[in-house]
Amino acid sequence: MPDIGSLLSPHAVAVVGASSETHTLRGRIFETIRGQPFAGRIYPISRSAAVVQGEKAYSSVDTLPERPDLAILIVPAAYVAAELERCGRAGVKAAAILSSGFAEEGESGARLQREIVAIAQRYNMAVSGPNSEGFTNVAAALCANFSPASDKSAGPLTPPRPLGAGQVAVISQSGGLGFACFDRARPRHFLFRYIVTTGNEAVLEAADFVDYMLDEGKTDVFMLLIEAIKTPEKFKCVAEKALQAGKPLIVSKIGQSEPGRRAVTSHTAALAGATAAYSAVFERHGLIEAGDFDEMLDLASGFLACKDRLPKGNRVGICTASGGAGIWMADACAAAGLDVPILDDATRATLSVHVPSYGTSQNPVDFTAQGVQRLGYAEFARVVAGSPTIDSVIVVITARRSAFLEADLPKFKELKSTTAKPVLMWSYTLPSDRTIEILNEIGFPLFIGAPGCAHTLRKMVDYRARREQSVINIDSPVPEATRAKIASLLSEAPAIISEYRARPMLAAYGIGSENTGQLVQSSDEAVTAAQMIGGPVALKVQSADIPHKTEAGAVVLNLEGPDKVRAAYARVLAAAKSFAPKAEVDGVLVQLMAPPGREVILGISHDPTWGPLLLVGLGGILAEALDDVALAPVPLDQGQARALIGRLKGAQVFGRYRGMPAADLDALSWLMVRLSQFAYEHAGQIAAIDLNPVIVHAAGDGVSVVDALITKRHGGSSQHQGAAEAEMKAGIS
Amino acid sequence: MPDIGSLLSPHAVAVVGASSETHTLRGRIFETIRGQPFAGRIYPISRSAAVVQGEKAYSSVDTLPERPDLAILIVPAAYVAAELERCGRAGVKAAAILSSGFAEEGESGARLQREIVAIAQRYNMAVSGPNSEGFTNVAAALCANFSPASDKSAGPLTPPRPLGAGQVAVISQSGGLGFACFDRARPRHFLFRYIVTTGNEAVLEAADFVDYMLDEGKTDVFMLLIEAIKTPEKFKCVAEKALQAGKPLIVSKIGQSEPGRRAVTSHTAALAGATAAYSAVFERHGLIEAGDFDEMLDLASGFLACKDRLPKGNRVGICTASGGAGIWMADACAAAGLDVPILDDATRATLSVHVPSYGTSQNPVDFTAQGVQRLGYAEFARVVAGSPTIDSVIVVITARRSAFLEADLPKFKELKSTTAKPVLMWSYTLPSDRTIEILNEIGFPLFIGAPGCAHTLRKMVDYRARREQSVINIDSPVPEATRAKIASLLSEAPAIISEYRARPMLAAYGIGSENTGQLVQSSDEAVTAAQMIGGPVALKVQSADIPHKTEAGAVVLNLEGPDKVRAAYARVLAAAKSFAPKAEVDGVLVQLMAPPGREVILGISHDPTWGPLLLVGLGGILAEALDDVALAPVPLDQGQARALIGRLKGAQVFGRYRGMPAADLDALSWLMVRLSQFAYEHAGQIAAIDLNPVIVHAAGDGVSVVDALITKRHGGSSQHQGAAEAEMKAGIS
Repeated sequence: MPDIGSLLSPHAVAVVGASSETHTLRGRIFETIRGQPFAGRIYPISRSAAVVQGEKAYSSVDTLPERPDLAILIVPAAYVAAELERCGRAGVKAAAILSSGFAEEGESGARLQREIVAIAQRYNMAVSGPNSEGFTNVAAALCANFSPASDKSAGPLTPPRPLGAGQVAVISQSGGLGFACFDRARPRHFLFRYIVTTGNEAVLEAADFVDYMLDEGKTDVFMLLIEAIKTPEKFKCVAEKALQAGKPLIVSKIGQSEPGRRAVTSHTAALAGATAAYSAVFERHGLIEAGDFDEMLDLASGFLACKDRLPKGNRVGICTASGGAGIWMADACAAAGLDVPILDDATRATLSVHVPSYGTSQNPVDFTAQGVQRLGYAEFARVVAGSPTIDSVIVVITARRSAFLEADLPKFKELKSTTAKPVLMWSYTLPSDRTIEILNEIGFPLFIGAPGCAHTLRKMVDYRARREQSVINIDSPVPEATRAKIASLLSEAPAIISEYRARPMLAAYGIGSENTGQLVQSSDEAVTAAQMIGGPVALKVQSADIPHKTEAGAVVLNLEGPDKVRAAYARVLAAAKSFAPKAEVDGVLVQLMAPPGREVILGISHDPTWGPLLLVGLGGILAEALDDVALAPVPLDQGQARALIGRLKGAQVFGRYRGMPAADLDALSWLMVRLSQFAYEHAGQIAAIDLNPVIVHAAGDGVSVVDALITKRHGGSSQHQGAAEAEMKAGIS
Repeated sequence: MPDIGSLLSPHAVAVVGASSETHTLRGRIFETIRGQPFAGRIYPISRSAAVVQGEKAYSSVDTLPERPDLAILIVPAAYVAAELERCGRAGVKAAAILSSGFAEEGESGARLQREIVAIAQRYNMAVSGPNSEGFTNVAAALCANFSPASDKSAGPLTPPRPLGAGQVAVISQSGGLGFACFDRARPRHFLFRYIVTTGNEAVLEAADFVDYMLDEGKTDVFMLLIEAIKTPEKFKCVAEKALQAGKPLIVSKIGQSEPGRRAVTSHTAALAGATAAYSAVFERHGLIEAGDFDEMLDLASGFLACKDRLPKGNRVGICTASGGAGIWMADACAAAGLDVPILDDATRATLSVHVPSYGTSQNPVDFTAQGVQRLGYAEFARVVAGSPTIDSVIVVITARRSAFLEADLPKFKELKSTTAKPVLMWSYTLPSDRTIEILNEIGFPLFIGAPGCAHTLRKMVDYRARREQSVINIDSPVPEATRAKIASLLSEAPAIISEYRARPMLAAYGIGSENTGQLVQSSDEAVTAAQMIGGPVALKVQSADIPHKTEAGAVVLNLEGPDKVRAAYARVLAAAKSFAPKAEVDGVLVQLMAPPGREVILGISHDPTWGPLLLVGLGGILAEALDDVALAPVPLDQGQARALIGRLKGAQVFGRYRGMPAADLDALSWLMVRLSQFAYEHAGQIAAIDLNPVIVHAAGDGVSVVDALITKRHGGSSQHQGAAEAEMKAGIS
């Protein structure tokens, strides 16, 4: 692994391409670095100028008086490889390439980018970019970038009174957004450690930087702005490492919409994966997803200030002096899925001594302006925080004036040290700078928007719960021999594997039963099969050329009696022929109708970035139109399967519902576990699996897998690696 | 109607209860008024002091040297009535009551409040409050309130360079939120006209103030913060008046959640209606709903700047110099339901001359920093605005530095005057004050959040479309005689009107057919009826005591043959008896099974604030669990009914879907129109109507109303006024 320390914390830096013209990017970067009190040496390198911005310039990196740790390259794309090669030869350990004109510009640029990768590997150099905007190491006061946010005129890099004791890092593919994130955080007085923009990520990816910073141990909260992920397995490993360490990764996925993705392709040459797949993976690995800057900064603020006191549950007490503002916050909490319970009687009795008659002590606790004037916010919050019915406190204030906080400062500090519950502040007026300073000194995060405050609290609850979950328990579902046999059956099967062929493979993993129905070749055989089965049957044409049998009319349900079976046999074959005249038909499957229950669709899809994902959704024609599905990476354990079912908007149908008994969710979740394991172990071969529908019977009665279809990956074979193997290979240093 | 002009624009003001102690509210209000350059006379009235804050004080309003237009009352609740009476006798035309201790404090306070109402009526006084925080008339520099936002230390009331030429008013029940809204708008440099807080609205309601301001004609955009609406019909009339005038009402409903509503009750003694009902009414009358301050201010900013150029459609062109930021904006636009189409070839060709090779001209148009440096934002935006494929432009900028805008100012002004399309600006960095000034001078609204910018644009599209809709076309569906007959049938019917009694009434309005099935009293009659009907039948017990027949097991479907009918007859009666042993059974309805189709639930519910609302949703057990319903006030026309169906998340099932032909939406929407008219004309008597399910057949084949149930209002009678009559009565001055 190349040395990211040389990149981010160099003692000596060469700026290759530095210029005196400060209105150009090449001039601006040199000016920006020198504008901050970086303690190391900075060498301008210029092919044309002997002096750059008053400093002696050098013609090449190998003519410097010392070997720099880092070279910043800002020369035209065509010269980058040569300069990088020169750096490598000179023993420079790291390079930040700010030049554009690489993979984002089509094949010729991609070729240049491959050259860079080869050089970096050859010299084991830590290389960021190309097409990046550089980075800032705040602690070292090194601004190796040309962002206006790094200008000394934009203010100091570190605030005099930062929020909490922790440090924040931003890692962003986009330079503009990465430095904007730092810039927009300024009024909040965060202590930043790094801002790193990664551009095309030809060599170092966002996950590499997170990994380095986790090892370094100085960064407490990460904000990631991601367009696409180059090495998904590495990303997942780093995410797990951060989760174990309790260092929250707040992430925003850029390019979720169709026009957004269109632009991503031209912007950083990265193919953005499907939004839902990213969200499923983020959820699995404990990342905290955010939609825009304000949401990211709100989350960072909450985690920075409350990392030692994340809430144990979702019950919040709201203290307010403005009735209307308290109600608004209660609405915001409810919308975020937080509970605002009526406080316990003892707490209410204590409060009632102080609450004027037109206030209320239930929750939100409206102390009124007069009540707060008498008792002070800190004492008020202390009483509410003491209630056993709540896990956190939100104090609604008007922060335009700071006098009331100033007067209450010692009591607020005492509150902070005596309660283990998080206390968040929301101001419905715009806060003064002094208010922010005071609250930072206390260590209570201040929010400007009620929804942002409530949302942050909710994410803090979720993050704590996620960390307390036990690690995933992957059983070995089948012996190695079975696994190998299925792999070989899969590789011999056609691209579309019909139900009668798919069932035995799935049944080996405990998914449905093998002996469901009989494949017949004539109407007589169909009649005989139906008689042997007894009870109403379904007839289904089996053909690799007709994967969607229902739409083709190649399925008939609920047949009773020989005449109906015979007629249906002819009908389904005729329908199949008319739908796909050249279809090769393997036969017709005669199957006992499953008893009724809740219909579910269960499936596997292969995401180009993340590999196999399991999907569960409510079945039935109308419910499907509502697209109520939940997605998770495979494999999953039974607890995760239950949680996934619970995320369906219509999950209530599985309980006692409209006179029906509760559904067998044990059986459904067990089926999901097994399906996920099948997909995990054969990920290299499988593009999709459809179990549609699965019928979930009453509790204790199990599930019926009514249909099954496996679609293979193009070019997939048993030699292709499964997800399991890929994960083992992707171990990171 | 009392004279609101005397309240908001007085020449002389008496402050009853004024004090020298400026740390109390009574002292602060006098100090606040005097802190601003109000040109009228201000008289302190005090029972105990001869001098208040250096001014000669008077003992009572009738000892003043002139008759004031307005009295501000800030004495304890118990003295308010007497002081108000004195004002009335002295000929004072208006009073603002800031004292608390009225209806928000239970019955004794409510009694005091009723006294105030009586006095106000007796003297025809314009009275705001009680329990309010007063108001500000910005143009008159009159701050009749004690909000810190009105302190002269908080800055001037009017900005030097306001956004656009229009003025904004805030009307809020909550004092804290109302003035906070003004305060938070300060950095945006809006020109406010009024901030009015209405408190308990004993006499004057929010709608009265809006009505006055519409007549006055100086206010262009309204922001309303509403906890509950006292006179719904007045509110609706004023909303329509505003819509006709093209003056957007931006509204936030406070107290939407259960804990929020709990607090509303104790806060302003107003019963908050159900959220969905408010939203349905807001939507109908063209109000623009917002969830929090930032959303309100974003919307106000968009409408203020673009009121003369609302977008014709939802297609937006995005100009950016930062790839990542452009993508983020494209994501935000897609999330807001806006279209970001690829630009037309001619525009792309023009752009391609200037776009560097690593930018892109498709949309978002990424001009890159270099491209913008060369051409300037204004010229760039001008080319994009000229594209016939888009209706509006968003320019993504970094507004930390203003130099580039300053240099481009003439071109920006030219752009503003030469394009009829709205141009919105989003800065991904925090803007400098100078940037805001420049953009205000140009008249382009600046947004700090990408979602807020996109959301505002979307609401501007919707508002324009809403204004261009033709007015609702209310047919007279039945002759007066029929209407009277139905009213009398309803009033004679029991509280729960079973299907067999409900059908003839509904059929008179064209809702379902009258002769659907036969009511029988024995199994023999049931068998005979089934034979006469021919085809499969359903049996349904008819009893006012068993409104939910399915849950009671008192319905059996799909019966063929005498034996099955006979057995089912016994079964449903037994089930009914076991479910409700004392139920009075009117008989059993034998009914032909309807042919299949899409199941829909259609109904009417009576909201305590808004009266009858029509509900439509997808039927079927699973779909119902997903709660996919849409709500609208009655009556509605066929276009509105179609739009309501379109708002269902699963609306696609009505098109060609999964092999089914398109559904008969003409018939469904016509049924909705008729049901809405029935509910509208008999609103006084009806608590609910359930048509569940309605089966929608293929286009041309109509709908089947399979079940019908009417629930009457408690104490409802034909004498109670219907919604139609109430609306006529509520005409506002």
